[in-house]
Amino acid sequence: MTFAEFMEAQTRRVDAYLTRVLPPRDTPPTHLHEAIHYTVFAGGKRVRPIMTLIACGALGGDTEACLAGAAAIEMIHVSSLIHDDLPCMDDSDTRRGQPSCHRKFGESTAVLAGDWLLVYPFEIVARAAEEGAFTPDVAARVCATIARGVCTSGIVAGQVLDLEAESRDVTAAELRRIHELKTAALMEACARVGAAIAGAPAQLSDTAARSARALGLCFQVVDDILDVVGDAAVLGKPTGADSENAKSTYVSLHGLDLARDMAAQLAAEARDALDALPDSEWLLRGRQLIDYVVGRSS
Amino acid sequence: MTFAEFMEAQTRRVDAYLTRVLPPRDTPPTHLHEAIHYTVFAGGKRVRPIMTLIACGALGGDTEACLAGAAAIEMIHVSSLIHDDLPCMDDSDTRRGQPSCHRKFGESTAVLAGDWLLVYPFEIVARAAEEGAFTPDVAARVCATIARGVCTSGIVAGQVLDLEAESRDVTAAELRRIHELKTAALMEACARVGAAIAGAPAQLSDTAARSARALGLCFQVVDDILDVVGDAAVLGKPTGADSENAKSTYVSLHGLDLARDMAAQLAAEARDALDALPDSEWLLRGRQLIDYVVGRSS
Repeated sequence: MTFAEFMEAQTRRVDAYLTRVLPPRDTPPTHLHEAIHYTVFAGGKRVRPIMTLIACGALGGDTEACLAGAAAIEMIHVSSLIHDDLPCMDDSDTRRGQPSCHRKFGESTAVLAGDWLLVYPFEIVARAAEEGAFTPDVAARVCATIARGVCTSGIVAGQVLDLEAESRDVTAAELRRIHELKTAALMEACARVGAAIAGAPAQLSDTAARSARALGLCFQVVDDILDVVGDAAVLGKPTGADSENAKSTYVSLHGLDLARDMAAQLAAEARDALDALPDSEWLLRGRQLIDYVVGRSS
Repeated sequence: MTFAEFMEAQTRRVDAYLTRVLPPRDTPPTHLHEAIHYTVFAGGKRVRPIMTLIACGALGGDTEACLAGAAAIEMIHVSSLIHDDLPCMDDSDTRRGQPSCHRKFGESTAVLAGDWLLVYPFEIVARAAEEGAFTPDVAARVCATIARGVCTSGIVAGQVLDLEAESRDVTAAELRRIHELKTAALMEACARVGAAIAGAPAQLSDTAARSARALGLCFQVVDDILDVVGDAAVLGKPTGADSENAKSTYVSLHGLDLARDMAAQLAAEARDALDALPDSEWLLRGRQLIDYVVGRSS
């Protein structure tokens, strides 16, 4: 199976699970449920849930049991996209080439759909434990891990710093901190959730988390590079937005060449961490995911 | 101890716990943490967390262990107030006589503070289990219960229906449904969380939940009555807002006298359900809380 086929197959698994656990779009309140389905199935690359499954599989766990954790993290990610796009935040009219949630369903529904998607993951994880996918002990750890990826050490804090940075120049250290919080923290949560569901010892969970953090930062550097050199049609969003908004990025702070070096360096860090894990089919997929993130064009 | 003294003492317990678990307001990102402290400590009556403690105590549980559940529900409630006040929702400039969160801290921070307060509760509950306040099994049940009070059968769905109802006349059944979702569902969650932490059997949890649902609806009818006959200075908000906004309320649909009858009837339902529970000091406080809700002037 090629890596592209692997990604497709895992995306289908994640999507099937999401379809099963989300309320049908035609059940009341339909406007809310439609907004949720619209954004959850908007063609996201499912990098986070697949990372979660890979971490679980590479640490010897049952990836079927891990689907709840993977889907939970994807919902959190989708929620953050909806709220980030709001007029009072990044004010984005489109997302993945389609109208953003608030453009399509109105601002109040977008806020509420985002709220819903922030909370439902915890119900999903608790329910999976009730159904025996993992022990309640693991469920509690998964809930705490996901919450940490959102709150003061996660995406919410990152978005606060990101918005504050818009009005001034930021240092390289500040930019890195923003991306650690906005992107790397939830990627780290993917690894830790997968590890928790695999029942992996703390040391292996830390190893997977170190790799995931580096990959998260790499992901963000590549994002900044694609905003300069990417193809708008492939990306599904206009390029040049960062420089138009005078936004500090890895490229604006370090230049394109150095940004590329940094992406490669972070990918190497992510790969190196994986050397400590036992060889397996899933670990191979983890290495391929790193290659994919650093080499992606969208 | 009078009931007022009891409420004060319990409020102090809840506030002390919240102070302990919230990140200090002067830690980064300070703007976010200040907004969180501002709204969490804005003088709320703490009805929900105290209901949670009462349910736990009345069902024989240790209310000290229950503080995490009580604080978690209060955070969810505060989050819903912040988001409900946003310009795209109810557009309220004040809350409890003070500037609402987005008026004080800006709209983006208000969205993010609300997001933070929706997710942190799950970390608090998971951490309390790690610290031995209750078993992970109970933590998972508490997380699922709280999430149900928020999502499709809770406050988010209620706010969606409430906003949809603004543009048209609603029937009495529709209005009741909105209040079941917006108010009664989280009140029911209080009872179920307290019952879960007390380790009460399902039947007793259901009994407490039935009382809490009735009390939640009663709370809402009284709110509608106070908007017509209340004292703005005591309420901390202007009265007459509902009729000014042509909003359907129990009073506009049924008239003041019938609305008062309904409040009394719902309070009686809430009291009657409690007859099935064994007598105790905490149960007495539960009865007094019902009297307080139906008789309150703010």
